[in-house]
Amino acid sequence: MDNATVIEALTAIVGAPYVLTAPEDMAPFLHEPRGLFHGTARAIVKPASTTEVAAIMQLANDLNLAVIPQGGNTGLVGGQTPDAQRAAIVLSLQRLDRIREVDALTDTITVDGGVTLLKVQEAAEAADRLFPLSLASEGSCTIGGNIATNAGGTAVLAYGNTRDLVLGLEVVLADGRILNTLGKLRKDNTGYDLKNLFIGSEGSLGIVTGAVLKLFPRPRQRITVFCAIPSPAAAVQLLARVKSEIGFSLTTFELMSRICIEIVVRHAPGARDPFAEPHPWYVLIELSSQIEGDLDAKLEHSLGGAIEDGLVLDAVLATSLDQRLAFWALRESLSEMQGREGGSIKHDVSVPIAEIPALIEEASAAAAKLIPGIRPVPFGHIGDGNIHFNFSQPVDWDKQAFLDRWHDLNEVVHAIVIRHGGSISAEHGIGRLKRAALPAVKDPVAMELMRTLKAALDPSGILNPGVIV
Amino acid sequence: MDNATVIEALTAIVGAPYVLTAPEDMAPFLHEPRGLFHGTARAIVKPASTTEVAAIMQLANDLNLAVIPQGGNTGLVGGQTPDAQRAAIVLSLQRLDRIREVDALTDTITVDGGVTLLKVQEAAEAADRLFPLSLASEGSCTIGGNIATNAGGTAVLAYGNTRDLVLGLEVVLADGRILNTLGKLRKDNTGYDLKNLFIGSEGSLGIVTGAVLKLFPRPRQRITVFCAIPSPAAAVQLLARVKSEIGFSLTTFELMSRICIEIVVRHAPGARDPFAEPHPWYVLIELSSQIEGDLDAKLEHSLGGAIEDGLVLDAVLATSLDQRLAFWALRESLSEMQGREGGSIKHDVSVPIAEIPALIEEASAAAAKLIPGIRPVPFGHIGDGNIHFNFSQPVDWDKQAFLDRWHDLNEVVHAIVIRHGGSISAEHGIGRLKRAALPAVKDPVAMELMRTLKAALDPSGILNPGVIV
Repeated sequence: MDNATVIEALTAIVGAPYVLTAPEDMAPFLHEPRGLFHGTARAIVKPASTTEVAAIMQLANDLNLAVIPQGGNTGLVGGQTPDAQRAAIVLSLQRLDRIREVDALTDTITVDGGVTLLKVQEAAEAADRLFPLSLASEGSCTIGGNIATNAGGTAVLAYGNTRDLVLGLEVVLADGRILNTLGKLRKDNTGYDLKNLFIGSEGSLGIVTGAVLKLFPRPRQRITVFCAIPSPAAAVQLLARVKSEIGFSLTTFELMSRICIEIVVRHAPGARDPFAEPHPWYVLIELSSQIEGDLDAKLEHSLGGAIEDGLVLDAVLATSLDQRLAFWALRESLSEMQGREGGSIKHDVSVPIAEIPALIEEASAAAAKLIPGIRPVPFGHIGDGNIHFNFSQPVDWDKQAFLDRWHDLNEVVHAIVIRHGGSISAEHGIGRLKRAALPAVKDPVAMELMRTLKAALDPSGILNPGVIV
Repeated sequence: MDNATVIEALTAIVGAPYVLTAPEDMAPFLHEPRGLFHGTARAIVKPASTTEVAAIMQLANDLNLAVIPQGGNTGLVGGQTPDAQRAAIVLSLQRLDRIREVDALTDTITVDGGVTLLKVQEAAEAADRLFPLSLASEGSCTIGGNIATNAGGTAVLAYGNTRDLVLGLEVVLADGRILNTLGKLRKDNTGYDLKNLFIGSEGSLGIVTGAVLKLFPRPRQRITVFCAIPSPAAAVQLLARVKSEIGFSLTTFELMSRICIEIVVRHAPGARDPFAEPHPWYVLIELSSQIEGDLDAKLEHSLGGAIEDGLVLDAVLATSLDQRLAFWALRESLSEMQGREGGSIKHDVSVPIAEIPALIEEASAAAAKLIPGIRPVPFGHIGDGNIHFNFSQPVDWDKQAFLDRWHDLNEVVHAIVIRHGGSISAEHGIGRLKRAALPAVKDPVAMELMRTLKAALDPSGILNPGVIV
């Protein structure tokens, strides 16, 4: 199919201003922010409605055109970036940006797929409700992208992944049919669960154009405490204790090693160590509750017991909003500040919570054997078993020489993760980055079933070809 | 295929004692407890392991034999009962009854598919953990059946449906392949979500032989209160208020109309009205928390405000375990006691929570128009929008004459449910009971996709033919 015909047909659907073909117009959609993936495309097309998305997919199905759905272009595994293999069109959802309805009594919000996560959060807040999904990229990522990648973030411990926050979906299928499961129901056992098939499918089975999401009461009280601890094993024990004694109110439990604090204090303006003395490990704990009450007394009691038992070495309670934000900044600026230490090789992995100490110990040792002088920088959402196991380059190495070892180090770390029953992609997805690595670590029947599903739902393979399977 | 060859092949897999063919041996597996569904079968086969289940499915695939998986035989929609159309074998999972592992640090339990729900609850309790799924049939239903039907129950408001409690599955597919996703991970974004495809598929896409389930801290404090309220609208407002003021601790919010209390008090030995005066509507509220604290004071404060605003007419707090059980008995014996009032036509429906008052009003009026003198007996899990909208016969009618109107009344009620964005099966499933009614109320593309999935995963249609699609 020649390009001019394709462009003309797309223009007939969305109008000329919304079909981008000039290289400078297309550029922002063809490069992801970190610069790891670059693509080419016939055009960027920007529909304004579900009907227009459906018409584009009908066209793509007729002409056998590859289509790359794109939300905020913030994904970390290249799932939103076309490759050069097959002249694709990038379908940007950004103009589908309406909040359709907030139903405060049913605790739901219904939105277009292209609404930013921040806008969803704000609409919930305006109705005195909480939409708990929270990510570093929330200002630009879209809810459709969050759904397509089953995004995680910092509130998974209490509220679950994106999957757990979705009640219904509107999805445009590969052939342009529109699946409508936009119900607000908490209970609906009328046949197969279709929505979870699309959640986390990275745009390879359908395009999320709308969603009904769960809302929650807004917390009235937040307690944030920064703890120094002796070891990851102590962190796991402390997590079990706080869960048992405080229960549902525990919303954050983030682990950091000493080097994490050192890196942030060294590079981030205004950052400072919460303790006078250095400690080997830290956890950031946050509780939140609808009830304004004696939650801080309960937490102090729980931590008091943990100090007696040697699980906690020291603890500082945030006594002001500023101090709370400073504690969070230590955790949240880490990814960026790590870049100031030279090359960084990353692993977004998860293991059963009980296996975290062994994972950290074994992977650190194996990495040091592979690359003497390497600096392990493990941190993450220990409450849900997800460790962002990053490694900074040896101090005296050349950055590129270190980054050239990316694949070797991944292999070593992933093998340990798999041995402990873990996952090589806890929250970022497979995309184009990890597709080749997947078959070696996934149950073979699961791989076969994934291919069966892809063939059943997208027989021509036009939806985001090159991701996952 | 002649019967003798089939029986011989099954016997070679599981051993002679575990292939039942005598009518008296097969009978308990061919009739469901309420007597609404009856079936016939070539044999009942009772494998002892996943490997044996896989061998049976390979055989069934080779011989094109229909297989009806069965757990505790407690389903309410005939999903576990073969029909007479196609000589099937019933595959009972009851011998797969091992607790495989409890991991208290990771908060998981790994079990065989044929373990009873009660045994799972008890194993969790022995490790000082809670497995929150709770149903009337928990002593005999199996966890594999709970998973296959995405069972609901009384704790959905706080803990979700069965779907929300499953981390990983082991499933035998139609051709005997074994899918293993038995991970303990809270976060795993490595491709399509396969487990949710099988959860709620009523044994028509695969057979659940094992599962990893989430465990929770055991509550240390429970508060139970019985409230008299003026209307369903007040119940919805009260629910929103208590959720906002008490939040996560709210675990039960059950609605009952006046006639529910009258029926139970009339027929259940020892049951009594918690109030001296009759009231039009009631809610049973339960809070639970890990924290032993001032939850009762918070609830009293919240209810005090609700009384001032006219949302609550009167309230009694359970001050002893006996009183708590007496409150629960009013709710839980209702289904049984309703049988003493003659014929009962049932609807297991859900609507968005805000629509509950309109549903009750409109469906009661429409039913009275269809059958003058009919007695609406609405009750249910209002906290998740699920109303068991039962109707007792007019006092002076013949029971069978009333039951003959089952289909007519269903049609009227379901039409109102659908108009309010609801579901005709909130928690019991589709099975054989509601299969014919499904296409008229389900999104047509959803129906097409369900058929596509069935064809992709069970191309010969041997797995529980006759349920759902």
